[in-house]
Amino acid sequence: MIPSRQHVDLANALADASGAILRRHFRTALEVDDKADASPVTTADREVEAELRRMIEARAPGHGIIGEEFGSDRAGAELVWVIDPIDGTKAFITGRPTFGTLLALLHEGLPVLGVIDQPIVGDRWLGAAGQPTLHNGRPARVRTCPRLEGARLSTTGSQYFTEDELRRFERVVKRVKFTTYGGDCYQYGLVAIGGIDVVIESGLKIHDHAALAPVVIGAGGVMTDWQGRALDVSSAGDAVASGDARVHEEVLAILAQEPQV
Amino acid sequence: MIPSRQHVDLANALADASGAILRRHFRTALEVDDKADASPVTTADREVEAELRRMIEARAPGHGIIGEEFGSDRAGAELVWVIDPIDGTKAFITGRPTFGTLLALLHEGLPVLGVIDQPIVGDRWLGAAGQPTLHNGRPARVRTCPRLEGARLSTTGSQYFTEDELRRFERVVKRVKFTTYGGDCYQYGLVAIGGIDVVIESGLKIHDHAALAPVVIGAGGVMTDWQGRALDVSSAGDAVASGDARVHEEVLAILAQEPQV
Repeated sequence: MIPSRQHVDLANALADASGAILRRHFRTALEVDDKADASPVTTADREVEAELRRMIEARAPGHGIIGEEFGSDRAGAELVWVIDPIDGTKAFITGRPTFGTLLALLHEGLPVLGVIDQPIVGDRWLGAAGQPTLHNGRPARVRTCPRLEGARLSTTGSQYFTEDELRRFERVVKRVKFTTYGGDCYQYGLVAIGGIDVVIESGLKIHDHAALAPVVIGAGGVMTDWQGRALDVSSAGDAVASGDARVHEEVLAILAQEPQV
Repeated sequence: MIPSRQHVDLANALADASGAILRRHFRTALEVDDKADASPVTTADREVEAELRRMIEARAPGHGIIGEEFGSDRAGAELVWVIDPIDGTKAFITGRPTFGTLLALLHEGLPVLGVIDQPIVGDRWLGAAGQPTLHNGRPARVRTCPRLEGARLSTTGSQYFTEDELRRFERVVKRVKFTTYGGDCYQYGLVAIGGIDVVIESGLKIHDHAALAPVVIGAGGVMTDWQGRALDVSSAGDAVASGDARVHEEVLAILAQEPQV
């Protein structure tokens, strides 16, 4: 399914609303304990999701909603919006402007539209099936990278892998040009503009990954699980995004080898 | 020695000039191989340092200069400027707005003024002996964090540690609330505004660390090598920066324990 102009407009309006709220909360009360129930990150998270759910109910009343904070409404609908108000809460908490709001539209469980919005730097990626991904309104394009030895690899942090996954990941680290850490959803936006060649992660939930594949794929890249399958609502949460399909194949092959313990 | 108003004005002028150049080069030609001699990062690095050296020669002709790209002039002078045009070149190359220009003024080898400038987000930290650190012109203050169990730890990437250092670092990781990765100099700016409690790194050169201690210390924090000594031109490059002196002591004690192999 190709998202309509109305879907794209709603996605942009949702991202605008989220950014306005997050800019108000960012770096306020850094002193406060972040696990307290009324911490700034929790407050901002809930305020964004509540507002976005109101907007969806008003403008697209038949659509379903899956939100990180307030759960699911009509999750079985043909069209379902997926909301992650703050992807990268640790970045938000520590004052790093690399967190993002993630928005996706699922059609029968498959993401057909995705937005990654970083409201402090002012970076918005919008990917929609059938059209080129836009970065701040201009077409985005991945980088050519024919071989893994030339690739820039990234992941948020190695602590998110299981021990077995980490051994597989480290084999890729040994082969690439260099590895950078940190960035959550922002890394996938950087794949779409040719800054990063490969992102490898695991443990992603539907609200973490649904927005990412449309952005990466619409910029000419590839995004699958570690077995090479498209990501959907039933995915386990392991993911590889690559700018160049040749490097993607190399990475999947290395991840699939049994680690020597 | 307390830096004069003229020193502070020159530091700000240098950061302004660097930011103007870096904003022009950021995210241009991401496609290009970053190791080529005329790569965008190399071009930007050299253009900034050449311009800053010209400005220092014109406005403070007796001062020495140590630059990452073009080496030392009058490094034995009483007052020496230290320039790192782009700290975090991998961040710059991949399009992450967390790199920074680092500027320091050494008095007899000891940093008395430091600037961390992130020109894309628009974050400038200026620390000068005898005055509070300023973040975008307003006094910056570290976070209270009495115990390591509540601390937010950060480092650029574990690949920068030796194996022995990594074992020591991992013992700290096990004790803190959470660990985030990435950020280079930007992490130390976040310590100064209370976003991060502890940064642990090693392998820093004089142009990497000279600007950092004045920023952290002027915001109420502590920054030393792993043995608790002040950082100066002769330091080996291992560093710990903490917002709260109590946590700093805990971290130094853990790093000092012999790892059990």
